[in-house]
Amino acid sequence: MREFRWIADYFAPLASLPAALNLRDDAAVLSVPAGQQLVISTDTLNEAVHFLPQSDPFKLACKTLAVNLSDLAAMGAEPLAYSLALSLPHGTEEDWVARFAAGLAQMQQRYGLSLLGGDTTATHAPLSFTITIYGLCENGRALMRSGARPSDELYVTGHIGAGLVGLHAAKENSNHPLRAHYECPTPRIKVGRALVGVATACMDVSDGLIQDAGHLAAASGLSATLMLADIPLPPDAEAWMAQHGRSRIDLASSGDDYELLFTAPAGQHDAITAIATHCDVAITRIGTIAQGSGVQVLDESGAAVSTDSGGWQHF
Amino acid sequence: MREFRWIADYFAPLASLPAALNLRDDAAVLSVPAGQQLVISTDTLNEAVHFLPQSDPFKLACKTLAVNLSDLAAMGAEPLAYSLALSLPHGTEEDWVARFAAGLAQMQQRYGLSLLGGDTTATHAPLSFTITIYGLCENGRALMRSGARPSDELYVTGHIGAGLVGLHAAKENSNHPLRAHYECPTPRIKVGRALVGVATACMDVSDGLIQDAGHLAAASGLSATLMLADIPLPPDAEAWMAQHGRSRIDLASSGDDYELLFTAPAGQHDAITAIATHCDVAITRIGTIAQGSGVQVLDESGAAVSTDSGGWQHF
Repeated sequence: MREFRWIADYFAPLASLPAALNLRDDAAVLSVPAGQQLVISTDTLNEAVHFLPQSDPFKLACKTLAVNLSDLAAMGAEPLAYSLALSLPHGTEEDWVARFAAGLAQMQQRYGLSLLGGDTTATHAPLSFTITIYGLCENGRALMRSGARPSDELYVTGHIGAGLVGLHAAKENSNHPLRAHYECPTPRIKVGRALVGVATACMDVSDGLIQDAGHLAAASGLSATLMLADIPLPPDAEAWMAQHGRSRIDLASSGDDYELLFTAPAGQHDAITAIATHCDVAITRIGTIAQGSGVQVLDESGAAVSTDSGGWQHF
Repeated sequence: MREFRWIADYFAPLASLPAALNLRDDAAVLSVPAGQQLVISTDTLNEAVHFLPQSDPFKLACKTLAVNLSDLAAMGAEPLAYSLALSLPHGTEEDWVARFAAGLAQMQQRYGLSLLGGDTTATHAPLSFTITIYGLCENGRALMRSGARPSDELYVTGHIGAGLVGLHAAKENSNHPLRAHYECPTPRIKVGRALVGVATACMDVSDGLIQDAGHLAAASGLSATLMLADIPLPPDAEAWMAQHGRSRIDLASSGDDYELLFTAPAGQHDAITAIATHCDVAITRIGTIAQGSGVQVLDESGAAVSTDSGGWQHF
């Protein structure tokens, strides 16, 4: 009776909200406070596609929740709860489940989350998880991709390319400091909340900065221009690019950054500087929004740069 | 660019609620009407575990939603929306996606659902889907497993064992009428809604009637007694059991029935008869609830029957 015992031993203790009904019912029953909306996002992580085989289950749990929390951050939502669908290969050891649950517990505590429900199934396939995450945002205030306006400025938090550098470090099993970013990125929840009422549009960078800037522009019916030299790279990125034969365009086209990309009118510049200070996160102006469509990247001379590597496509 | 085109061509048309933001944002933003709660359930279906390889994608979509709708039915909730996480093997054909989306569309129309969001990913593994489904129920009125009281009667809708007979028919590729039940069971949404205020506890039968009766009894801190001869079997079940060497206990221990198992005080018997008529579904009294713990099955002489086949465990 492993399924029910594992749920009782490892997952029920994570279900602290009364809405979860101790994971013993057919569904959860959630109340949404008056004046608020529920922000809902789903992400799947598949072994060998989204994470390396034999990954540490503690870190995997962190990454799975971090990726989902990043979507809440992008909407300016406050984290509330999540549902977990866990497909375990036959022969999964109890210790694996215990470590995975410990990773979830750490993230729950850090971000004020509760497990709400889910499904634990066996699979003949590699590991796979799907998390559906729930957050709260004041009525009509969630940050959307579609709100950018002509002459808005385009900003990004943190560094771009940390996902790619971290992935290489994980594959090479090196101790590069950005390996931790790949294994468990920091969702920009606090920044996202602070941007409510300041940003006109927002999304998280998960498929590559250039491609994602194109998504934001398209959702707003506008065009985006990025200044390549202004894209903030990780501290030792120049040396890493030289060593690995990679360019700025490569870093701006790689996935797994989980930074926030947002737009705001020029008049909000001081407010954004204050948010960066308050949240202790770099926020860099990297471009502008205008009439038209598509995304272009300019070098320091103002010439358009080819960006054919495009970004991450799942298939 | 298959991922984004498939989402735009096949899934965005299914996202009719404004809350879905046309599937173009990082999350959905859902309002829950005042006086109502959101009922949330997650189910995963994995190829070769929950469905046969090479299954028809149209029917798979139906089954995936039906299984999730059954959880809403068990809570007495009205269907509202769902998130879909779809892990597609490399090389999946566009026609497969089109047929899967057509199956979703048919179920959406039948049950008043909208696609709210999700994730489409590639996998090196067999097909896998996770659906998180959302329904609405009046504040504090959702049907839970934990509400049964001593001397309540135990009822079940429809027939028990149709899942097992239908699975055999699907495996043998026969035209048995219960094959349709296995391929796309009918979620008891209308009955579930009608039972709000009538049933004291309710759940859906997915892991086998006997095991599930044990879950309901345990959640209520009570015991359940089932009368084996009263368990309603499909029309030609006697002949099927003789032919396949199976017993009533086998049918009452097999999964995939998706009927509602519920309890009500004896005084509700007329109300339940009226619900059966109104919903055009058989509802059969099959046992009783009492102090104590566990579940026992009695034969016509009142003797306890061994039930060691137990029920479905995922691993």
